[in-house]
Amino acid sequence: MAMANAFSADDARKLDAAERALIERRARVLGPAYRLFYERPVHLVRGEGVWLFDEQGRRYLDAYNNVASMGHSHPRVVEAIASQLAVLNTHTRYIHDRILDYAEALVATMPRELSQVMFTCTGSEANDLAVRIARHLTGGTGIIATAHAYHGLSCAVSEFSPSLGSGVPLGPHVRTVPAPDADRGPGGDVGARFAQGVQAAIDDLVRHGIKPAMLIVDTIFSSDGVVADPAGFLQPAVAAIRKAGGLFVADEVQPGFGRTGDAMWGFQRHGLVPDMVSMGKPMGNGYPIAGLVCRPEVIEDFGRKARYFNTFGGNAVAASAGLAVLGIIRDEGLVANAREVGLVLRDGIRALAARHPAIGDVRGAGLFIGADLVRDSTPREPAPELATRLVNGLRERGVLISSSGPHANVLKIRPPLVFSRDNAQTLLAALEEALATI
Amino acid sequence: MAMANAFSADDARKLDAAERALIERRARVLGPAYRLFYERPVHLVRGEGVWLFDEQGRRYLDAYNNVASMGHSHPRVVEAIASQLAVLNTHTRYIHDRILDYAEALVATMPRELSQVMFTCTGSEANDLAVRIARHLTGGTGIIATAHAYHGLSCAVSEFSPSLGSGVPLGPHVRTVPAPDADRGPGGDVGARFAQGVQAAIDDLVRHGIKPAMLIVDTIFSSDGVVADPAGFLQPAVAAIRKAGGLFVADEVQPGFGRTGDAMWGFQRHGLVPDMVSMGKPMGNGYPIAGLVCRPEVIEDFGRKARYFNTFGGNAVAASAGLAVLGIIRDEGLVANAREVGLVLRDGIRALAARHPAIGDVRGAGLFIGADLVRDSTPREPAPELATRLVNGLRERGVLISSSGPHANVLKIRPPLVFSRDNAQTLLAALEEALATI
Repeated sequence: MAMANAFSADDARKLDAAERALIERRARVLGPAYRLFYERPVHLVRGEGVWLFDEQGRRYLDAYNNVASMGHSHPRVVEAIASQLAVLNTHTRYIHDRILDYAEALVATMPRELSQVMFTCTGSEANDLAVRIARHLTGGTGIIATAHAYHGLSCAVSEFSPSLGSGVPLGPHVRTVPAPDADRGPGGDVGARFAQGVQAAIDDLVRHGIKPAMLIVDTIFSSDGVVADPAGFLQPAVAAIRKAGGLFVADEVQPGFGRTGDAMWGFQRHGLVPDMVSMGKPMGNGYPIAGLVCRPEVIEDFGRKARYFNTFGGNAVAASAGLAVLGIIRDEGLVANAREVGLVLRDGIRALAARHPAIGDVRGAGLFIGADLVRDSTPREPAPELATRLVNGLRERGVLISSSGPHANVLKIRPPLVFSRDNAQTLLAALEEALATI
Repeated sequence: MAMANAFSADDARKLDAAERALIERRARVLGPAYRLFYERPVHLVRGEGVWLFDEQGRRYLDAYNNVASMGHSHPRVVEAIASQLAVLNTHTRYIHDRILDYAEALVATMPRELSQVMFTCTGSEANDLAVRIARHLTGGTGIIATAHAYHGLSCAVSEFSPSLGSGVPLGPHVRTVPAPDADRGPGGDVGARFAQGVQAAIDDLVRHGIKPAMLIVDTIFSSDGVVADPAGFLQPAVAAIRKAGGLFVADEVQPGFGRTGDAMWGFQRHGLVPDMVSMGKPMGNGYPIAGLVCRPEVIEDFGRKARYFNTFGGNAVAASAGLAVLGIIRDEGLVANAREVGLVLRDGIRALAARHPAIGDVRGAGLFIGADLVRDSTPREPAPELATRLVNGLRERGVLISSSGPHANVLKIRPPLVFSRDNAQTLLAALEEALATI
């Protein structure tokens, strides 16, 4: 399956000679596994706050990047990293205070049951570690994930990341379940329906002699097309996996750190306490830091028998970056900002949908928004080609978003958390213009 | 199996109240999977060049850390990272020049067959990606590694990292082979003997219906106790895995970037060209960057069908750190320095061995040195307790090394590449003092 919003070599004719030369260099030295965004890829040289600048000085409103959640090149993060780099950057087998300050500040944002953290460099590593721990604790190997989930790129994690497409096989111990669907399903209770899928997956694993180890979900279902409501719908599914002896892992790599606007963590919207919580992307505002927060009883035996050492994970520089990010979220009121500006955006897109039948359902929480592009038919069908045209139309108008979902027809709008009401109006105006042309 | 040179809670009585309090905080918030070095862990606050400083201002000569290979807090790396951080730090789905400059400079250090690179954040991720590619290309799953190898900590990679101990199971598709042993084996050709082990592993995989996918070795056999000579001995084993349809992966996470003193890469000492080369640790002098360099034909089909995106891997900041490191290795002549100072160290340790029967064989290349601690008996037996006493005795004398190897009796001496002849004399003098007390 082709990646949504990927540049294709067929589009090279739209580029100027300099851009083509850069893309040829990429193909020569980076090889065929890399992908670029957009029909006309963007050549960036600078970022500041919500703005990115290309080599011709043109600026783009960033409504897509959830790594630079504090804004591009946030001076407080830059300073925290640079000053610690100049002093000390070693690993966790020496004592250093900063990692403890950070670890304590991080778990303080969680329910008290989640009190221990292990640091990695990437969200993939965090989810991979969750698998090792779940296998060790449960003695099982079965993993349940949603039908179009993305949890990472390691061998083990790519085996339960079906959104990578048919070129990346799922593991024989993996079962996928339909993502919760608050809108298109045939009535009834979203939570009960999702839990039925999870229970069927558990039954099928057991029927094949595979003991369930864990259910993992991205708590805002990013790759499944963004599903946020009704808050609380995850509870019956979590009860089902626990009853089967498995663990519940909340993948907060995308929804975490305040993005959903209701709380620091996506799982908190659902009123539950996971067994493990993985996190990454915005954690260091671009510095490679990620982690796994656990209930102590979940890692006690693993920790004693298996040990864990990640060379760069949780070093003094990573901890400094992480502390700066937590400080910015607090001091700049970014959770509340995500809630308020997210509402402006969703209301604005819904208002456009009233005049443009190509926009179907609009979902999300805080600054994570999904909007379906649909064909004007009954029942309304996914329209991926409209999403592609809109994403590229916005790029040409200086606004960066992307598309996603199992049918690649969902606009994925996920700006830095410092996005302002003015930025939201800019995006909405560009969206209206672009809608008029598709 | 306990980790060599690990702090044990039994040693807590040797610590002062402040140190005990820090260790209790670690246990509470980081959990049981973390380990500290030394009977009296070191509490670090600053690093500069080959020196590390603790909170009381005491300085330690760093003869262990291969991440800060350019020296701790090298100003050129700090400046490269800080200045790029302030400008732009995005990912590889937008065009950016720096990643191309770096990728081209990196593959220029390799034989021309190895012309494409994929960037990750950690060596574990690089080896994990090698597994995905090898499986995809060969259609096999069998992996061959040495008996005490360490290649990383992901699910897939820990399955062929036997040095993690019995708490971390090997995969059913994994076979281990005896590490090459240039010194203790019963005469004959080191290369032929190692290849016999590899061939036996291939035969056993096939006998179990498992198609071989790859042979992976750390080209200086760090965790197996450091085996460097005779250069070239890897060739017959590589021929054997290729004949069986598998790939040869050189794990350069530890020997790479000039450490062996003979060349930029450990495999070059063996006069061969791997199918894939993984690298990490010193690549950004502490910034989390790692990578996998491949022959294009090895990743062509994988790249088309599976794609690969690592959020932080190869971003503009990582590329800046990597470029700075390559520049320092060149401008400060660090490969030659590793060769020359490494020779001083090995000669010095051998001179000590002539007077101290506790030191057995001394091995290595450049600034990667292993020295066996042995009991004065015939045949000489591994003496891990002497290694532990020596490592801790050196720590008390302000010199940081560690121990390693299947019997935990090998002194592991692996200083930053900027280690000078004077530093070598300081280490040798401290070693002589410590030897007198064990």
